[in-house]
Formats: sequence, structure tokens, C-alpha cells
Amino acid sequence: MAKIAILGSSFGGLTAAFELKRLLGSQAEVTVISDDNRFIFMPSLPWLIMGWRRPEDITLNVSEILKSKGIQFIHEAAIGVDPETAKVKTTTKEFSYDHLVISTGPFLSFDEIPGLGPDKGHTDCTFTLDHAVRTGQTWKKILEDPGPVVVGSSQMVSCFGPSYELAFEMDAELRRRKMRHKVPIIYLTSEPYLGHMGVGGLGNSKRFFEDEFADRDIKSVVSQAIEEVTPGEIKLKDGTKIPFKLAMIAPPFKGVPAVAPLGNPRGFIPVDKNFRHTKHKNIFAIGVTMAIAPPEQTPVPTGVPKTGFMTVKMAKTAAATIYSDIKGTPPPPMTELEVVCLMDMGNTAALMKASPVLPPRQSSFTKKGIWAKWMKVGFEKYFLYKMKNGLSNLP
Amino acid sequence: MAKIAILGSSFGGLTAAFELKRLLGSQAEVTVISDDNRFIFMPSLPWLIMGWRRPEDITLNVSEILKSKGIQFIHEAAIGVDPETAKVKTTTKEFSYDHLVISTGPFLSFDEIPGLGPDKGHTDCTFTLDHAVRTGQTWKKILEDPGPVVVGSSQMVSCFGPSYELAFEMDAELRRRKMRHKVPIIYLTSEPYLGHMGVGGLGNSKRFFEDEFADRDIKSVVSQAIEEVTPGEIKLKDGTKIPFKLAMIAPPFKGVPAVAPLGNPRGFIPVDKNFRHTKHKNIFAIGVTMAIAPPEQTPVPTGVPKTGFMTVKMAKTAAATIYSDIKGTPPPPMTELEVVCLMDMGNTAALMKASPVLPPRQSSFTKKGIWAKWMKVGFEKYFLYKMKNGLSNLP
Amino acid sequence: MAKIAILGSSFGGLTAAFELKRLLGSQAEVTVISDDNRFIFMPSLPWLIMGWRRPEDITLNVSEILKSKGIQFIHEAAIGVDPETAKVKTTTKEFSYDHLVISTGPFLSFDEIPGLGPDKGHTDCTFTLDHAVRTGQTWKKILEDPGPVVVGSSQMVSCFGPSYELAFEMDAELRRRKMRHKVPIIYLTSEPYLGHMGVGGLGNSKRFFEDEFADRDIKSVVSQAIEEVTPGEIKLKDGTKIPFKLAMIAPPFKGVPAVAPLGNPRGFIPVDKNFRHTKHKNIFAIGVTMAIAPPEQTPVPTGVPKTGFMTVKMAKTAAATIYSDIKGTPPPPMTELEVVCLMDMGNTAALMKASPVLPPRQSSFTKKGIWAKWMKVGFEKYFLYKMKNGLSNLP
Repeated sequence: MAKIAILGSSFGGLTAAFELKRLLGSQAEVTVISDDNRFIFMPSLPWLIMGWRRPEDITLNVSEILKSKGIQFIHEAAIGVDPETAKVKTTTKEFSYDHLVISTGPFLSFDEIPGLGPDKGHTDCTFTLDHAVRTGQTWKKILEDPGPVVVGSSQMVSCFGPSYELAFEMDAELRRRKMRHKVPIIYLTSEPYLGHMGVGGLGNSKRFFEDEFADRDIKSVVSQAIEEVTPGEIKLKDGTKIPFKLAMIAPPFKGVPAVAPLGNPRGFIPVDKNFRHTKHKNIFAIGVTMAIAPPEQTPVPTGVPKTGFMTVKMAKTAAATIYSDIKGTPPPPMTELEVVCLMDMGNTAALMKASPVLPPRQSSFTKKGIWAKWMKVGFEKYFLYKMKNGLSNLP
Repeated sequence: MAKIAILGSSFGGLTAAFELKRLLGSQAEVTVISDDNRFIFMPSLPWLIMGWRRPEDITLNVSEILKSKGIQFIHEAAIGVDPETAKVKTTTKEFSYDHLVISTGPFLSFDEIPGLGPDKGHTDCTFTLDHAVRTGQTWKKILEDPGPVVVGSSQMVSCFGPSYELAFEMDAELRRRKMRHKVPIIYLTSEPYLGHMGVGGLGNSKRFFEDEFADRDIKSVVSQAIEEVTPGEIKLKDGTKIPFKLAMIAPPFKGVPAVAPLGNPRGFIPVDKNFRHTKHKNIFAIGVTMAIAPPEQTPVPTGVPKTGFMTVKMAKTAAATIYSDIKGTPPPPMTELEVVCLMDMGNTAALMKASPVLPPRQSSFTKKGIWAKWMKVGFEKYFLYKMKNGLSNLP
Repeated sequence: MAKIAILGSSFGGLTAAFELKRLLGSQAEVTVISDDNRFIFMPSLPWLIMGWRRPEDITLNVSEILKSKGIQFIHEAAIGVDPETAKVKTTTKEFSYDHLVISTGPFLSFDEIPGLGPDKGHTDCTFTLDHAVRTGQTWKKILEDPGPVVVGSSQMVSCFGPSYELAFEMDAELRRRKMRHKVPIIYLTSEPYLGHMGVGGLGNSKRFFEDEFADRDIKSVVSQAIEEVTPGEIKLKDGTKIPFKLAMIAPPFKGVPAVAPLGNPRGFIPVDKNFRHTKHKNIFAIGVTMAIAPPEQTPVPTGVPKTGFMTVKMAKTAAATIYSDIKGTPPPPMTELEVVCLMDMGNTAALMKASPVLPPRQSSFTKKGIWAKWMKVGFEKYFLYKMKNGLSNLP
């Protein structure tokens, strides 16, 4: 019986586990290793910050779900992988695998920028539930005692959507409360222009964000790297200083230390079109963990986003490939990665699509409409239902 | 009985006089001091230039109106104020006051730029009735013998609306006459970008003006200061020379000499949120006379506009504050200044709003529609009716 | 009987011949001299490249048409004009004229840029039927074996429409075939900005093309001159290298050698408002052959386009002027040149108008709609019918 280890219990890890179990049934022992027993629907973290969701609305219990599906769960942090002996080391154990799927997400590398991050108490972040809860508290203080807000991304970030969402959502909420004029909002980013999003834009996204920001009085500072953060002030590499009362700044992304030695200098793992490690054929990497070359060199380094939508597709392809490895059947057809993104805008929303992810593309656009908000709310419920019931085969 | 002196008989002066008389009745002696017996509805001066209004359509007789309301009128120029002895000096008199309201508007400082202004005969202007009448004559000559037109603003201007209006109106009129191709129109400005208007833009105003100017073949030269004007040519600080047959160039603004010593180096008077002089508590300054710090340093210095709409609000607040001073009651609640502006565009019009005036704002936008033209025409009639009858308490 | 020679058998030459014969009948001997017996409806060459037209769909037999109208045809290349003796030299003959109309179109000056042009086998072109046929073959190869496409114009080009059309058409066709993502498209141009088109833009054309290109994922490289072309690579003057599998690059335009000595250093012939040579009063030049000063110096030199629409108008004016010369009647009223252009966009089309051609203008706009496509298809049929039957007097 094939032993399959999966590192990570978020979009990629759970989907891979469900798929492998579904495809291989009793022919495989599928084990998920993660230090987090919670599945968080991360796309809703901006709503949690805004006070529009509670943690329990967007959290599932991983061990319960896996148990009901006959999947093992080791609730421990992986601390290393030895590809030669095919073993994962966790805090207390060693675990042998025949196949390994790595879906450990980003390591939030706050320490690369002096003063950055919630631990230093200067800036907030939206990429984990705990960070988001803390940011939500800072946001509440802004509503009581208004002051300047900065949202955005430092250099070497590859996920820009949530920052855009927060800029729009804060704008909308402040207008509802008739206090928008007390809170200047700056969108600060390493993207070379608004709407780049790490993928060279999606259709008319540059003009789209420029127009929306102008209409909403959101100022932007683009193509910038952060030198350091001190209490209440962000200092950019070019010397500009931006004061803030709340700063939600995405930190540089790296691969997590346990798997970084398998990857490139920043710890992202090189894979082929089936998400198989370019060197270690029984290791797969999906989601933020895996490396995609950017479509173009940007003046300030940025990365290509891997959304939940993309990660789920990667998990399915990786699972199908492992299935074909075990069964000795031909590998599944490679599909070009595409991205569909529903971006909340507070009082409306937008649907963004790029197919394939990087230009040139068969199809790419950015379209705004309240229907996109309905889709976004519906998708949250649907996806949580799907995960809770392990229905990874649903579209 | 409190003696209240008001310098100026335009939007601010008349409104302050009516309000103080209405509030205090026989408890105050209200005196307006002005060298101009005419109230001019200045927002219609661009229409006068275009030949769409006659002077009598937009002029009221100040002494008649004030008399009917029991307000004194000294038809003389103020030549100085002594805040220590609380006296206004006019050409032939000295006038003691308990409270002083200064609403003297801008001093058009043509002499700061060699060759600028109607007196030198090179450029025209739209900021006084007499200037506008003269500009209307130049415009008629353009219609007979077409040539290049330049409209816009020099450095240190704080009123951009009329120049935009004239650019649009001239464009529309020339097209009606099928001679637009004989008259290149350039909009020259100290604003850092189109639609800045001294307030950092209003919603999507940058794109709005860029698109409208492209559609209308109006060229723009932005972020420029003027070095000098010679017959038929404007020389910019960067050396560019712009030829013209008609040039309507707003000059640098300063405070008028009689009150400038009470103000900052350019003669604008520093006030608190009730428009009370920061040092002399019985002196108030409203309208262009009073100082507002710009929202941001612009590469070429510009000022924040104080429209008639804003000036009327300031006059009411100042009057209410003087009332509370005299009565010993609490001062009126401070309200954030906002601006609503109806901009004529010749064949259509736009409504612009910024609330508050300077960013960040609760609300700001630029919207185009023929309804805005109807509003503008209606407002002209309504406001003249209100002033003629001293109905300052109407909205 | 007046002897009138016409050089060229395309839009200008045929229209001039028909008009002169119609006006003068037996009072003139009208002779067309051309080395090409084919009239090509050149605006449809992009469609031929795309495979949407066959050569026979857009070709007429010149000698047959001229014969039916009683117009002489010398099927030989003109190799020189002697204005002093009023003679045209062809390959084998000398031909005396009383009046000469030059409508020889552009000389495609590939040799000014090393490696440019179909003869060197590196880049393609769309300005002659033979070039277009060859480009159509390259395009077919792209559909079978996709790779990067570059369309556009080198320095000193004065006809940008077909390159824009091809960029749009290729984009639309590739999307239909679901292979757009395999073919990056770059629009490379000497225009200072998108939509300039050699005439300083037409209404909102800059924004129009920027928006359309963003929506369609067509990248642009503007304000560039080409240094040289090597197999599969265009090297720009600024050192940038652009790889390509298909490159459709318009070459520098000059006047054709046979008439260039009558013109300016680049061989374009200076004329007055009636298209009469500024020095030789019995010589007229129309269409691309004649010189129009550009509306503004562009950083990379570009020229003013003379479309078929414009050339036909010029031919009529020249013919009417020759008629008045011969009859001794007053010359026809001069009309400002205007341009109306129907630009195909693959899945839609646009109507562009500039009246007059160069700014400032009475009217100019760019409007998109499927109706413009219907107009374009209809106009092709109508114009071919008109030429085939010599009905130059129809509008």
C-alpha cells in the first residue's frame, strides 16, 4: 500500500488528500501533516478584519474532517524533508513516504524588513487568522480614533488581492459611517503599476484600478520597496516617509523553512507542468510553495500569485499524477493554469480572469458588478461545504 | 450698539451684512465699505465674455439694496486697518468698529509677471466685470479674424474654474460657427495635472478633463509657471514660447493692500474655524481674503479656491460668531467647508463636489450632464434674486 | 487638344483619369502611365493577409477599364520627368504632356534599415498585393506553429492604419482559434503615442487604443526607431531587441525615384492647395506622392497619412484645376482636406474622422461599432464597382 504524505492542511493540502483518497481508496495510506488543526477560508480574512465575519464563520476542524474520510492526521509541524531517504521529520516523529505533496503555503518573512510585522507591533497583516484578528482590533481603533491608513505590499510579495480588497472595503465602510474624510487611505505596493497584481495586469485592470482609486480618493504609491518601519511610519527605499495609524503591509514571501532546502534561493520549489519536483520525482509541490517565473522583471521584485482557485487545480493535477504513477497509467493531460478571482470592493465587487495566468492570454478581463459580490458570498459558503464534506471532486 | 464694519460688497460682504442685520436688527450698526457700488454675479463673467450675458444681466446696485435693508454704505475704498485702535481708514474718513469682517477678495497681482495683464495690453482676464468686458471684445475679434487662443492660470492662482469654462465654451462656440479648425486652443495652467483645481482633484476629475480635452482637441500645458508675456507670446519658466492672439491668463493672487498687513507674506489672513483672525479676535476674514493651506505642495505653487458658494457659507458662520460674541452665547458649531461647483462646458455642464474641500473626503465627484447646465442657469437667477432682496437666510 | 499624362493607376491615377475624361471629353487626350496593369483595393490587403479575401476579390484590370472609357494606357514604368521640356520618359518611350498628374504612391524604402523587408526574408509588409500574399503565407505558418508576432511601423512611415488593423485582426482570429495565448502580439511604432496616426490623434484615439490594447493583451512599444533587423529579431535604436516569428513592419516612405527629383529631400512633391507643384505650374501631385508638413515634430520622425479617401479628393481637385486651366475659368474652390477612415478590428470596427486632417479641427472622433464593419465591407464593394465602371463622379 502506497504511503502518501501531505504537508499542509489548507486549500492545497486538503484537496490533495481528498482527491488521493477518492482515487486510490484503500490502496493508499494518506497522511496529512500540519501544525494547524484549523482550515481557514482565507479569502474571507479581509471581511473578518472589517468585522463582517467571525473566526468561527470561516473555520473548519481539520482532524474531524480528515477522520471522517479515513485520512490520517499528524497534528505536528514538519521540520524537515530528506528526499534521499524519503522521510518527513516532524517535531517528535519521522514519517516515511512513497509520495510527498508539499502545500505549505508562504513563509511570511517579516524579518527581511526592519520593524515590519505584528510581532514588532508596528504593522498589521491579513495572511493568517491570528494576524487578521489582530488587524481587526486595530481597525476598530481607527473607527474610534481616526487616522491615516496604509494598505499594501512590500517587495517580494506575490499576493495583492487582499490588500486591494481592504483598501476598497475600508473606503466603503468609512463612507457608510460618514467619516471617510478623517481617514486618508494610501495603497502602497511593489507592483510597477496599479492592477499589475504580479501577472502583468488582467485586461484593463490598470485603468480599472486607477479610475476606481480616483473615484474613491484612495491614493497610491507604486513600484516601491520598504526600507524599514518605525512606530507610525513606513520608510521607503527612496527615502519617502509615510505616516500611518494602521498599516496592513504584506511581508516578503519565502518558502517555509522545513521545505525551503528543496527549492530555489527563496525556498520556492521548482516543478514541472504536473507539479512534480524537477529533481525528486516522488515529491510534488503545489500552491504558494511552488515556483512560477514572473511574466516580466518588475523594477521592484514581485511574484506571481497562486490563489486558492489555482492551488485547488494544482492539487487535483498532482493527485491525478500520483494516481497514474501508482497505477502505471499515462499521466493526466497538462492544463494551462488559469486564474479566476472575485475581488470584494466593499459596496460592489469585481470578477477578474486570466487564462492562462500569464500573458499572452486567450482571455483576460476585469469586470465590476454587484453580481460579483453575490458570487463571492456564494462561493465562500459553497467551498466551506465542499471542504467540510471532503467533496473535492465537485467543480 | 455694536458697530460692525464690513469690507467688500461681493458674495461675502453682502451676505455677512444681511446676516448680521437679520440676526442683530437694531442692536447693531452694520456698515459696508466698498469702492464698488456694483454687485457682480462673477460666476457668469465667462458667459459675458462669450456674449451670452450683458453686464446689466448680472449686476445689482449695492447702495440701493443696502439702504432698503437699513445697512450703511460707505462708497469709498478702504486703504488701511489699524487693529490696535480698531479703525478702518478710507480715502477720506476714519471709521471705528467693534467688529470687522474682511471680504475684499483677491488682489490681481499682474505686476509679478512682466507683461501680464490687460493694463499692458497683452493678456486678458476674467476676474472683474471690466476685464471681462474687455476680454469679450478681444473674443469678438477672434471670431472675425481667427488665431490661437490660450486660456489658463499663472503661478499662485487659486481659481481655475472660469478658465476651464472658457476653454470649453470657446470650443463649443467655435464649432457652432464651423470655425473651430481656425482656432487652436491651449489650456495653460500651474496645476500639476488637469482637473487638480487647487484641491488635489475632485473624484475622477483628472481623467474627466483629459478625456474631454482629447475629445475637444483642446491641448494642455500643465505644471508651468510664466516667465513673461510679450505681445502675442507667453514665455514659460522652462523656456517654452506659446504664441497667442487671445490669452486669458489668471494672474497671481494676493491679499488686497489695505488688509494685507493683517495676513501672511502674500497678504492672506490666517483665521480659525470660525473665520476669526488668529490674533485679533474682533476681526474676521472670509472668502479669497482668508488663508487655507494647500492640500499638498504642488511643483508650481497653486492655491485653494474659495468659490462664491464657500464664501457665502463663511459669511454666515462669521456673522453667527459675531452674534454670539455680542450676545455672549456659545459660538455656532463649526462646519467643515465643502464645495459644490457647476462648471459650464459650452454645450453641456458638469457638477463637481468635494466634501470637505480638501482630501481625504467623505464625498467627491465630477459628473457631466445637461441638467447641470439647467442648474447653473437657475442658480444664477436665484442667487441674484436672493441678493437683490437681502434674503441671505435662504439656502 | 490638351495632352494630359497621369503617372500611376491606383486610387489617385484612375480617379484623375476618369475625372479629366469626364470633364474634358474629346478636348483632351488622357494617358495613364503605369507599370502595373492591376488596380488593387489596398484597404483590403490586411483581410487578404488574414485569409478573408483572395487577390481576385480586390483586383481590377486597368487596361480594360481605361479602354472602355477612351483613356490611353502605357503599360510601362515611368523612369523620369523633365519639367523643362514637359516630357515623361518610360522604359522605352518619351511622352510629351501639357499637364502632368503624379500619383505614384510611396517608394517603400526598405534599404534604409539593414535587414528590413521581404527581399531580405526577415520581415513582411502589407503595402503591395505581392507583399500581402507573402505575409499571408507567413501568417498561415504562425497558425500552424505559433510564435511571437510584431506588427507596426519603422521611422518615417506615414500610414499606420493597416498595422493597427492587423494587430486587431490577428488578435481576433487567434481567439477564435483558441490559441491567442500562444502568440504574443506587439505593436511597434514610431508614433509618439498610441493612436497618434501621424496626425496628432483623432479625438480620443490615444485612450481608445490604450484601452483596446489593454483589453486585448496587445503590448505596445511606441516612439521607437528601428536600427536593424536580423533573422527573428528587431533591434531598436535604443538597443532593445524584440524577437519575432512574424514581423509585419512598414518601411520608411519616400517618393518614387522617377519623380523624386521634383520633390523635397525625401522625394515628396511640394504643392499648393490645388495640388499644383509649387514651381512647375502644369504638374500636379496627389496622394502619398505629395508633401504635407506634419502637425508637430515627433521625437521619431513620422509622416501625415494620405488615405485612399484623401487621394480621391485630391484627384478630383487636381482634375478640376486642370480643367479650369484649359478652359480659362476660375479654379475650383479649395477645400480643406479631411479624412474619414474605417478601421477593421477583427471582431468589430471603428470609424475615425478628422476634419480637417490636421489639428486644430472642426470635428474629430474615434467611434467603435459593428456598424463600422458593415460600412467597411459595403464601401469595398461600392468603390470597386465605381472604379470598374469609371464612375468617378459618384461621391
